[in-house]
Amino acid sequence: MPVSPDTARRIEDFLTDYVHCIDDGEFESWSEFFNEKALYQIISRESFEANLPVGVMHCHGRGMMEDRVRALRRASIFEPHVYCHILGRPRIKMAENRTYDVRTNLQVLRTMQDGRTDTFATGKYLDRIAIDGHECQFLERKVVLDSRRIDILLVMPL
Amino acid sequence: MPVSPDTARRIEDFLTDYVHCIDDGEFESWSEFFNEKALYQIISRESFEANLPVGVMHCHGRGMMEDRVRALRRASIFEPHVYCHILGRPRIKMAENRTYDVRTNLQVLRTMQDGRTDTFATGKYLDRIAIDGHECQFLERKVVLDSRRIDILLVMPL
Amino acid sequence: MPVSPDTARRIEDFLTDYVHCIDDGEFESWSEFFNEKALYQIISRESFEANLPVGVMHCHGRGMMEDRVRALRRASIFEPHVYCHILGRPRIKMAENRTYDVRTNLQVLRTMQDGRTDTFATGKYLDRIAIDGHECQFLERKVVLDSRRIDILLVMPL
Repeated sequence: MPVSPDTARRIEDFLTDYVHCIDDGEFESWSEFFNEKALYQIISRESFEANLPVGVMHCHGRGMMEDRVRALRRASIFEPHVYCHILGRPRIKMAENRTYDVRTNLQVLRTMQDGRTDTFATGKYLDRIAIDGHECQFLERKVVLDSRRIDILLVMPL
Repeated sequence: MPVSPDTARRIEDFLTDYVHCIDDGEFESWSEFFNEKALYQIISRESFEANLPVGVMHCHGRGMMEDRVRALRRASIFEPHVYCHILGRPRIKMAENRTYDVRTNLQVLRTMQDGRTDTFATGKYLDRIAIDGHECQFLERKVVLDSRRIDILLVMPL
Repeated sequence: MPVSPDTARRIEDFLTDYVHCIDDGEFESWSEFFNEKALYQIISRESFEANLPVGVMHCHGRGMMEDRVRALRRASIFEPHVYCHILGRPRIKMAENRTYDVRTNLQVLRTMQDGRTDTFATGKYLDRIAIDGHECQFLERKVVLDSRRIDILLVMPL
């Protein structure tokens, strides 16, 4: 069953708001994109394809996400940097009633305080999104990264 | 008030035409995307967030933009290069009647004559766009760059 | 004549499916995006603008594409790697009845087995696409690359 243009636009806006939230450093709002019991996982493509559960980051539920952000705010050991997410067009498929499976290519560029910019990560988002009324929420967001060499500076969510 | 899908598509096409114009080297058409009295500014994120007016480039009105392009065409001191803009999905909000505030993530890749390609800039466009009939125009375009280390080769508009 | 939103969405989805197919390594499905007699060409911007027919890769018809993929599968000489395509928004123009000319900016990021990621290619797709019923097909796809220094590792289609 095809996804209506209106629903597609709503999901596309939601995914865009998510990356703007992170790129603008508004981490306290990050968990609000997720359902109370959502799964958020960062995993290498290698582990994902081998069906290994070993993720680089794994949050089950909003509580763990909020803990993560508090830790990030307290930690002053890492070099300050900002992200710029560039996403491909999301491919949206209906899963069940008002629930959608979405795949989106992603590139994250990181700029350090001294001005250096590099490609920090590439890969894809594999999402399950629910729409309730006009509001979207992640039920699940898997960030599958092309590289298994994940930078140890991975303290901010992707 | 939500933006109609038709208006959104029009703005998205306009933003796409803008980057294709620059990437194809058609600088003489660049100023036509702007209102006669529009502001065009390139500024670092650091200066932008500190509310400092110190931009890397600043054009007030089409005349200054046309001057800029003439200077660019005369200047032969810089190494030839081309840009490739990759934009995120624009987030469009209605400001006033027929006027829209738009934020779009951007990455500019630069290829030098010898074939080297690097990420030249990342950041976001913050735009105010007016629609008159079927035509879009920038009233204001701020290019907020993540890095304060702007390449001295910045002679082409972004 | 403007392109209907429905047609635009169909073409956008088609272009997205194409890059996901390659990024997921499903090369056996690659040729199915093309018409039986389609032209697929990778060419440098320099050659393209000088109207030189010298392409980096040139396939005329699906048969040549399938040969190419078979060769790729047999070849074990190259270092394993994956691609991540990030596309700009496609600009779609009606050419003839049910046929569309489309230009899309592209960036291809390549991740090697050891985890290194670099920008492999930037440029634009210049496509002619036919729609028959609900299905899109390339009649022609030209990949115009900004750099003339094409990596000798170019064994996978872009």
